[in-house]
Amino acid sequence: MTDSDLRYEGGKVRLHVEGPLRAGETVLLEDGQAHYLLRVMRAKPGDRVSLFNGSDGEWLARVAGVAKRSCTLACERQTVPQTSVPDLWLCFAPIKKTPADYVVQKATELGVRVLQPVFTRRTIVTRVNLERMRANAVEAAEQSDRLDVPECRAPLGFDKLLAQWPKDRTLIFCDEGGAPSFAEAALPDGPAAIFTGPEGGFDPAEREALRALSFVTPVSLGPRILRADTAALAALTLWQSIRGDWR
Amino acid sequence: MTDSDLRYEGGKVRLHVEGPLRAGETVLLEDGQAHYLLRVMRAKPGDRVSLFNGSDGEWLARVAGVAKRSCTLACERQTVPQTSVPDLWLCFAPIKKTPADYVVQKATELGVRVLQPVFTRRTIVTRVNLERMRANAVEAAEQSDRLDVPECRAPLGFDKLLAQWPKDRTLIFCDEGGAPSFAEAALPDGPAAIFTGPEGGFDPAEREALRALSFVTPVSLGPRILRADTAALAALTLWQSIRGDWR
Repeated sequence: MTDSDLRYEGGKVRLHVEGPLRAGETVLLEDGQAHYLLRVMRAKPGDRVSLFNGSDGEWLARVAGVAKRSCTLACERQTVPQTSVPDLWLCFAPIKKTPADYVVQKATELGVRVLQPVFTRRTIVTRVNLERMRANAVEAAEQSDRLDVPECRAPLGFDKLLAQWPKDRTLIFCDEGGAPSFAEAALPDGPAAIFTGPEGGFDPAEREALRALSFVTPVSLGPRILRADTAALAALTLWQSIRGDWR
Repeated sequence: MTDSDLRYEGGKVRLHVEGPLRAGETVLLEDGQAHYLLRVMRAKPGDRVSLFNGSDGEWLARVAGVAKRSCTLACERQTVPQTSVPDLWLCFAPIKKTPADYVVQKATELGVRVLQPVFTRRTIVTRVNLERMRANAVEAAEQSDRLDVPECRAPLGFDKLLAQWPKDRTLIFCDEGGAPSFAEAALPDGPAAIFTGPEGGFDPAEREALRALSFVTPVSLGPRILRADTAALAALTLWQSIRGDWR
């Protein structure tokens, strides 16, 4: 039996698991997670890893049994109580694969609760791989010390998103056509969502529709043209700094 | 002769060129730029593109002559006078290829003047491809409506960076070990630089050395662990919003 924390260059190994976490519980890892722990990290019985499941906080667990394609972990004790990120969603027009992966990863690190793809008029991408989104979000949550994984929702059309919008949630729409800056915009406290357009931006009719809604606040992100993925990350950063948990 | 603006999904085609731009000037494009214009954009004589060189503003030019591997453009008139981005540098520990490309691209969009790689104790990457950095910066400047390209400097060691630091430039160091938030930190006006560490963060001795310097201001970027590239982009965004040209 070894007795050391498994670490990689970015910190200690943390894994998101689905089942309950409590003292004495045994967790079975298979597939990608087992491969990562056994082959990439070369885990041996006794090695310590951290586990979280989105509701039971973070737990210290030890590698117990090791098989060819799976391994078991024994939960020892809770090391961090459960916390959540601020009530912020990201609604985004789906973009090409690599920038989309990046948005999901970064939005998770910056701290969003919900990732909501939205098809707009100028959206070029025609389908969203939710499984891939979810895998990226899990990996980013593991590496960012989060204790939950953002909810990856199925895509909605622009009109449907607005029709079923919860009115108490401010929709902060990144408007390239001139709007107050994030700091100047009178952003209310409470639940919020950032909405960013596709590569070609929002259509004029979409901008008009958004600006007519009482729950929408348009904001500008400076004088340069930002790519869709950059705009999403900049807006999330500014919200966390002004209304979120970076204060 | 056609008579239309060349456009791609993200907007009009803008190219960075090296030579002077003035009425009547002919600009020769070769290699990658000629390939892009002729093969990717299928430019025809008469098509309009925008040119900038970092000092003469933006110019409207027309495709004049077309050969197999090159083409010439005729400058017509200045459409935007020269502007610059705020006096902000990014000093960053070099990171793996893909995140590094991303940092260069995003930092250019967010508006930095200088990109300065810095080797720190925990830096894993051992060399920096300056030509690749420069190519990424040019492409990002073309697509973000910038009229200049950030200067890509040769890497420096941590000690050398600090020894030759211009004392009137605030060095904002992203400290994972606890510091005031960006909004709370008393950031002075005037020239500034963001400094972000490698995947494994700054070494304790480096943090101590930084904190002892009069021109250094430590800041925190929220309660979650951000990857090196995310930290750089979040810090640039916050500086632009608080002290830069997003106000």
